[in-house]
Amino acid sequence: MIAPRSHGADGMRYELYYWPGIPGRGEFVRLALEEGGAEYLDVGNHEKAGGMESIAALLEGDGARPPFALPALKAGGLVVAQVAAILQYLGPRLGLVARDPGAALWTHQLQLTIADAVAEAHDVHHPVGIGAWYRDQKPEAARRAREFREQRIPKFLGYFERVLMRNPKGPRWLVGARLLRRPLAVPAGGGAALCVSADPGGGRGRPAAPGRAGCASRGAAAHRPLPRLAAAAAVQRGRDLPPLPGTRRLSREARPARFTGA
Amino acid sequence: MIAPRSHGADGMRYELYYWPGIPGRGEFVRLALEEGGAEYLDVGNHEKAGGMESIAALLEGDGARPPFALPALKAGGLVVAQVAAILQYLGPRLGLVARDPGAALWTHQLQLTIADAVAEAHDVHHPVGIGAWYRDQKPEAARRAREFREQRIPKFLGYFERVLMRNPKGPRWLVGARLLRRPLAVPAGGGAALCVSADPGGGRGRPAAPGRAGCASRGAAAHRPLPRLAAAAAVQRGRDLPPLPGTRRLSREARPARFTGA
Repeated sequence: MIAPRSHGADGMRYELYYWPGIPGRGEFVRLALEEGGAEYLDVGNHEKAGGMESIAALLEGDGARPPFALPALKAGGLVVAQVAAILQYLGPRLGLVARDPGAALWTHQLQLTIADAVAEAHDVHHPVGIGAWYRDQKPEAARRAREFREQRIPKFLGYFERVLMRNPKGPRWLVGARLLRRPLAVPAGGGAALCVSADPGGGRGRPAAPGRAGCASRGAAAHRPLPRLAAAAAVQRGRDLPPLPGTRRLSREARPARFTGA
Repeated sequence: MIAPRSHGADGMRYELYYWPGIPGRGEFVRLALEEGGAEYLDVGNHEKAGGMESIAALLEGDGARPPFALPALKAGGLVVAQVAAILQYLGPRLGLVARDPGAALWTHQLQLTIADAVAEAHDVHHPVGIGAWYRDQKPEAARRAREFREQRIPKFLGYFERVLMRNPKGPRWLVGARLLRRPLAVPAGGGAALCVSADPGGGRGRPAAPGRAGCASRGAAAHRPLPRLAAAAAVQRGRDLPPLPGTRRLSREARPARFTGA
């Protein structure tokens, strides 16, 4: 059970609605809430807040603006769903995004591409049935995994490396010069994880646990960016997923040629 | 070849970058540009603008904020990619979205869910290889199609119906009381199409061509919302895709029970 935080950087008390026990897409929101010092209640992981019953009430309720899926965030009378929309809402409120509208839009665009990568990572295990068990589609998953590891994830990671290398503020972060102008980080340690940083030392001096680059000890409360060249290898790190069929670590040589010199 | 428009409601001359000859995801942007009366150049479909060469130059160029994929929109010195981000950028500039921030965020959230539905519709034909031919994955596509037509698309359409029914301004539009507070419409006539409206008469008096509910005669230049009860049946209308394996029209009876009374 995760206790509610009480720092409350922006005076709001947020409620995060997400399935209990897994990081998943909810972790993207937790990372932003934690990094921004928000006061929030992780409803699904909090029995006194109603846990699953409160989640069911939200999903099955008759609100005028119902969420299609979780995560959802309550902020006063507002309910926001869709990770990218939640992060876009939280960014300026928690001081996590640049004030310049162009930079904020660019950040949102990157988050949308991260969301696409996460969806593809998820689908590797569920290629012919999103709601069906992985065990019932293993041969298909193996076939999809091959394209994923040989083409799709190198394409995504190559793209984010290009963005890093072209950042006018330097290749340490995707946007801007310092941690965190906006939460683009990563639910490391579980689920579909994608983290790209050119900074092998991590941000704000948070050390990784020995042997675990960029891992989270307990939800989003501890995280740091992954070393740049280890990012591809770290995509398959999920605790709650079986290994990707046929996954191997991408070597430096396996990366697209046009980025090796970057 | 589509000629450049020259009405220019907001004084900007936009450039749309998208693959020529198909509606695809670019059509969502075209619909917004057309509905908002924008001046824009459809670069991929315009030889004098460079066509595919200009598209390649954008994708392979060394801009500081490169697009991961198309469509992309140029507005002065700004380049925006990701359909939802483009629409969010255009919305207020073309008067297509409510001024109330909560309503604008809600609209964006709906667009993100539409984007998810479109991605799933696309993947039905490419379940084990996004870049592979449909003909090389027909059995897998048939399996994925079954879940899509029996579970996924009824879930999406059921959701959008619920949103319609709960709209405080009435069930004619997903958001607000009139066409178009924001482009949530649909590349009818090709690609992965998803359109939901409770209004069988269409908006602004634009008639559909005989026998073609909500079709576009030429890109986005002509469109209208689909009748509500025909929406599910109209999802499979693509000109550039083979029929979904096993697709049949969803009958009124096949719809989720909880929405039949709505």
